[in-house]
Parts: sequence; C-alpha cells; structure tokens
Amino acid sequence: MSPVLYDLSGKDDALRFSPYCWRVKLALAHKGLDVETRPWHFVDKDALAFSGQGAVPVLVDGDDVVCDSYEIMRYLDRTYPGTPLFGDERAEARARFFKFYAERSLAPAILRTIIMDLLNALHPGDREYFRETREKRFGRSLEDFHSPSRGLSQLDAALEPLRGRLDEADFIDGEAPAAADYLVFATFMWARVVSAADLVSNADPVYAWLERMLDLNGGMCRAAPRVVDLPDGYR
Amino acid sequence: MSPVLYDLSGKDDALRFSPYCWRVKLALAHKGLDVETRPWHFVDKDALAFSGQGAVPVLVDGDDVVCDSYEIMRYLDRTYPGTPLFGDERAEARARFFKFYAERSLAPAILRTIIMDLLNALHPGDREYFRETREKRFGRSLEDFHSPSRGLSQLDAALEPLRGRLDEADFIDGEAPAAADYLVFATFMWARVVSAADLVSNADPVYAWLERMLDLNGGMCRAAPRVVDLPDGYR
Repeated sequence: MSPVLYDLSGKDDALRFSPYCWRVKLALAHKGLDVETRPWHFVDKDALAFSGQGAVPVLVDGDDVVCDSYEIMRYLDRTYPGTPLFGDERAEARARFFKFYAERSLAPAILRTIIMDLLNALHPGDREYFRETREKRFGRSLEDFHSPSRGLSQLDAALEPLRGRLDEADFIDGEAPAAADYLVFATFMWARVVSAADLVSNADPVYAWLERMLDLNGGMCRAAPRVVDLPDGYR
Repeated sequence: MSPVLYDLSGKDDALRFSPYCWRVKLALAHKGLDVETRPWHFVDKDALAFSGQGAVPVLVDGDDVVCDSYEIMRYLDRTYPGTPLFGDERAEARARFFKFYAERSLAPAILRTIIMDLLNALHPGDREYFRETREKRFGRSLEDFHSPSRGLSQLDAALEPLRGRLDEADFIDGEAPAAADYLVFATFMWARVVSAADLVSNADPVYAWLERMLDLNGGMCRAAPRVVDLPDGYR
C-alpha cells in the first residue's frame, strides 16, 4: 500500500502549493515511491487530529505517522535507505542550513511578492483563517505587506550564493539532486503553483536549475496544475 | 619543515586580515599542522611570481605550491586526511554553498560597513592599489561605497539562515566545526582584525558561535592582533 500524504490544496483540489508538502513529494519521487495524496485545507484541523497536531505535511506509511517536512525526509532515509536524500552526519548537518535558507531568506522575499496571488489561490474556506493568522504575524494587512518590488529586490539579494553554486554545478548537491535541492526548490514550486510572477530572470543560473528541477521524474513538477491553467483561476 | 603561507598583512606586520588566508590558517589548525606565515602586501606581486599568479593565500608545502583558499583546504584534506574538513562528495557539494554565502552575501555587507577601517589598516604602500582596484570594481569612490547603516541592514538579512542553524547547533557542521564553519567565520575574522564595528548583537545566536570560534585551538583567533590593539592603530 502506498503511503498517504495529507497535502494542502487550494480553490481547486488539484492546486497543491504547500512548499513543505512539495519537499515530501520530491523526496518520495527521489526514492521512487508512489504516494496517495489527500487534499487538505488549513481549517480541516479535525482531519489531522490523529497526528497530534494541526499542520501538513502528515505522512501515513503503514503504522507510521510522521509530521514536519524535514522529519518526513529523515524518516524516508531511515526507512528506505536506497538513494539517500541527506547522506552521512556531516552532509546532513550542512543540509540543515538549506532548510533555513529556504524558510528565512527565500520564502519571506517570495511571499512579499506573491501573497495576493496566494490568497486568490486558497480554498474560499481558508481565506479568512489565512488573513487572520498572517496579518497577526506581520502586524499589518496583507495588502500592506504585499510589495512585489521589495520582495523581488530581497529575493535578488538572497539568491546570490545560490547563483554562485549553480554557475558551477547542475545541482546544489552536485551532479544529481538530493535533499538540499529539494529543500530549496520546493519554495519555488509554492510560487509557481499560485502565481505567474517571474521571480528569476532567464539569464540567471538559478533559472536553468529551476528548469532542470521541473524536468525531474518525468516532468512531475512541470505538470503540477497552476492557477494560471485553471479556467476560473482568477475568479 | 612546516608549510609556508603567504599571508596578507597590514600597516603592522602582525595585522593579518585576509579572510581567504584565515580560511587556510583555520584549516591548518583543524589538522593540527604548524605553519610559518610570511607577511605579504597587495603590491608585492613579484614575491608570488613562483606561484604563477598574484594573490594570497599561497601555501608552499614541501614541493607543493597551492593557490586559492578553497583549493588549499581541499589539498589539505587530500594530503592530511585525518580530521577531514569537507567529508565525502555530497558533504563537499554542500560546503561549496558556504563559500558563496560567505563571499557573496556576508562579505559585501561587511565590506560596506568596514571599508574605511580596512583602508586605515592597510600597509601604506597598499592603499593606492586598494583604492584604485576597488573604486573601479564598485564604480564609485570608497567614501561613497562606505555605508555602515546599509551594510549592517544587508548583513542582518543575510544572517537569517545562519541564525536558524546556530540556534539549534553549536557549529554549522554540527557538534564540532569543520569546513562550513571556517569558510564563514573567516569573513568575520577579516572584520575583527581591521575594525571595532559591532556586526552582530550579543543576543544573536551568531554571536555565541563567533565566541566559540574565537576560542578554538587555544584561542588562536581571539589572540590575533587587531587594529584597535595597536598603539598607532588609527594614526
């Protein structure tokens, strides 16, 4: 039986945008594992009660219930040790940095750029929850937080080390992608699914890497439905 | 015979501030290797002619002449494989990112903050060379480039992922420092030797890590002479 992943979904069930869930889907594909995803919305806290907390991703694999994207990746390496995501202890220590780089450098810059697109992509039942929790976190309205010009300039600065690395190698982790690539790329999948914003110029080495990542696993990520593909995407 | 390191020095021979040379000194100490350093100045191109190029660090180890800080670290791992700096191929792929993080995120922010201090710390014979090459690179005068408020705000943003990592671990590389720690910390040694600027608040997890790094190897880095310690440091 395939593992089951509770996966955040938007106004259409096919819109799957959570960067944390993308980490897990990329990690499962890296291991060659199939997965059955169950659409979930922010307000469906009851549906996750069995996991002891209220956020996705939650992976149910036989008798194992694992929460938190990074912990799920570690679980997959322990349980399915072929084609490791992390590598040995030192390699894993360094992988941790990419988690924080994605969450604290890239994601805030991208969020500032796409937050109104993200709001539009949410399931209608999630919008009030999203607005309330985020406005409390930012200390201002979503509309005031939204600033594509500032977001893109923050992102441009944050991408500098990634440019250096991807100018010399096809993937962050070398000749083939692994944990560091997935941790970072998942943040771009989040933006891609909900927004048409051009975050990275096509002359940027990061752009060429994004294209390579979209092509992995038979183009799994490139094929993921986007708001722009939906007939009623902006209604 | 100890290896010999050509090491950039300032207005006093004891002032050793090059971040690239610090990477090498930290790597040598990590291996428990003694080193004989030779003070060098930017304009002493002839003294390095034997190496085929004109920049430090240059390490002369028996018959081996190795240039470029990162290549010297790799050389040390190949030649003295005990207590590895990098680890296996995947760990090394991830270490590359820290080189770019130090050089492209942290160093530009720090330089903007300390460039006039750096100019003051240089050997008088190096100042014209430094001003000419840097003003050409920045497209403006050192005085116009100098902006501690902008530099510190850039640095604050750039430190976010490092804060995340150092909030959970003593060192970037885990329980003990290795290549990633040295690649990043060397940039802070550069600032420490030439400037009294407070780059990181003492409530920051990065500050506690800097203190730990200063204490390594019997306080080798803490003992390194600084401009502020020289009687004629600001004359």
